[in-house]
Amino acid sequence: MTADIARPALPLRPELVGLEPYGAPQLDVPHLLNVNENPYAPSEQVVADIAAAVADAARGLNRYPDRDFEALRADLADYLAAESGVRLDVAQLWAANGSNEIMLHVLQAFGGPGRTALSFAPTYSMYPEYARDTSTAWVAGRREEDFSLDPDAARAAIAEHTPSVVLLASPNNPTGTALPASTVLAVLAAAADVPGGCVVVVDEAYGEFRRRGVPSALELLADHPHLAVSRTMSKAFGLAGARVGYLAAASDLVDALRVVRLPYHLSGVTQAVARAALAHSAELMAQVGSLRDERDALVVWLRGKGLTVAESDANFVLFGMFDDRHAIWQGLLDRGVLIREVGPDGWLRVSVGTREETAAFKDALVEVASL
Amino acid sequence: MTADIARPALPLRPELVGLEPYGAPQLDVPHLLNVNENPYAPSEQVVADIAAAVADAARGLNRYPDRDFEALRADLADYLAAESGVRLDVAQLWAANGSNEIMLHVLQAFGGPGRTALSFAPTYSMYPEYARDTSTAWVAGRREEDFSLDPDAARAAIAEHTPSVVLLASPNNPTGTALPASTVLAVLAAAADVPGGCVVVVDEAYGEFRRRGVPSALELLADHPHLAVSRTMSKAFGLAGARVGYLAAASDLVDALRVVRLPYHLSGVTQAVARAALAHSAELMAQVGSLRDERDALVVWLRGKGLTVAESDANFVLFGMFDDRHAIWQGLLDRGVLIREVGPDGWLRVSVGTREETAAFKDALVEVASL
Repeated sequence: MTADIARPALPLRPELVGLEPYGAPQLDVPHLLNVNENPYAPSEQVVADIAAAVADAARGLNRYPDRDFEALRADLADYLAAESGVRLDVAQLWAANGSNEIMLHVLQAFGGPGRTALSFAPTYSMYPEYARDTSTAWVAGRREEDFSLDPDAARAAIAEHTPSVVLLASPNNPTGTALPASTVLAVLAAAADVPGGCVVVVDEAYGEFRRRGVPSALELLADHPHLAVSRTMSKAFGLAGARVGYLAAASDLVDALRVVRLPYHLSGVTQAVARAALAHSAELMAQVGSLRDERDALVVWLRGKGLTVAESDANFVLFGMFDDRHAIWQGLLDRGVLIREVGPDGWLRVSVGTREETAAFKDALVEVASL
Repeated sequence: MTADIARPALPLRPELVGLEPYGAPQLDVPHLLNVNENPYAPSEQVVADIAAAVADAARGLNRYPDRDFEALRADLADYLAAESGVRLDVAQLWAANGSNEIMLHVLQAFGGPGRTALSFAPTYSMYPEYARDTSTAWVAGRREEDFSLDPDAARAAIAEHTPSVVLLASPNNPTGTALPASTVLAVLAAAADVPGGCVVVVDEAYGEFRRRGVPSALELLADHPHLAVSRTMSKAFGLAGARVGYLAAASDLVDALRVVRLPYHLSGVTQAVARAALAHSAELMAQVGSLRDERDALVVWLRGKGLTVAESDANFVLFGMFDDRHAIWQGLLDRGVLIREVGPDGWLRVSVGTREETAAFKDALVEVASL
């Protein structure tokens, strides 16, 4: 039947032609310090509790899960109250398969064709992909030389581009930079003046790693109905493989995400795994404390070696400058240490690993960079 | 700081204003025959294997999962070879969080602004939502009175609307109607003539329930690079709560989906659960056989009571006609049996449950409809 017709072309969208799937190289080397994973695997107690919770859920897996995952949202609200001192209502919480899907929901509801999403570079490299996936125009303003965000520059960019969504990573990836409340407030004020409205998302994927005294934007939610704060269980909770991102905002904003989410987007198993891990928050947050200490020590060590290091409130450190950063990256890889060649030219990013992994990284760097 | 500014409006997309989240009512009644779930919960052996597989995966959950889930795709290929006799390569398989996300990927890659998706009503009520979520124009042609699809009408609709994506549910939801290969081939030929290309998705969510002799569109894949066949583990595998949909197509088509998927969209836990269940395919397919028998018997019984019943190759039956279908639906609900008020006016849809559930449905219907 088809022998006499030409092989039909696929109607791939023109903006996708020639693109490769997003993602860092997945290489099998001894020390993986490239994608800001938590180096600590779940404890045997957490593993056992996850398995038991999933067995329980599995007995009912022939049924669709709770579309609104209210129990999980209640647990997330309790966790944020403990972590940040901000008590939110269940209706103010949302969750999805990773922060990726959270951002997709935000842009499906508030971005889309004819609208613009704005962020400030260097920042998380997935942001333009979220925009592309939702046919939202993408504009990147600039951060300062020290990777901070100048409030006046931010205000001016918002006034110029009238975005419907502003994405602010804090702590920022790949630089580690957290934003002071005054900067977030300046952005919120400028966003409130955008005709048609503008949602500001503060992406706190690395929020739990912030230094003492650095605030969370969660504290600003009560006064700002156009603010959303996204978080993830991938980093602090060490659950990158479970794919649980979440968001806190006014309930009106969450209701908009409920309209665009695919029904039953969060599986019964994912809900069970997340709740089992949340029951171990206290133990997991202790690990976060030790990773913060390890991070601070690494910054001091790198500076002691004469390198430039960006201030970090995250579980990674951006450092440089190197005339040939690729050679440094390759040299480390040759020694079994995989880090990430990302950020402005001359800089490299290393995730904070276990003490042993950090030691391996230091040893390799001393050799490769002749420190 | 914000006391003197008006409460900022949210920039909700205009097409979303006033919409409610999609989904059937989630009511707590004894007999749930409304969303075509498999009535059989996983056996204790399947539960145990899922829990063990998840415990294994949990020990590495601090790491991101395999972005390309190659082991799962290999298992899916083996399953399809056993189920349909069609041997596919791993590169021809794709998976996501439910068929919902599969369809989202398809429309993100091949639909979008300025493009049209076409289907033939009455059909699955999520299709226009997928189109809306991706800013794809939506056109619904018509099925015939008996819910079959006339090949000439389908060809004419494709020529008129030049869609970039055609969605064909077979067996169709909510009617149960499977398409003969000749109709699918007519659609594929018309799609091959669409300037710019057109992908045809045959949605076989209920494919395993088809009657003996009814073909799967998987058999047409080898000759049609613009064909995709979607499946799910929600129905035949009884894993609605695990959210695993998948798709088979030429590897070029799958590669396009890889570009638009969010990285790590399929969690390590979901991969583990799906693989554990796939290892029990034979046992689960035996249950499918008994549900098919139950379905056929239900069709005979309904016809014996003088009702009109659509031919069904699915695990549900569309029956009628009722002057006041809502009264019938409500009467059944009052007797603890929840079915679905869906499809053309006058019809109702009931899922095939256990023998006990079907008996409860029959008893209630006899009373309510005075049969």
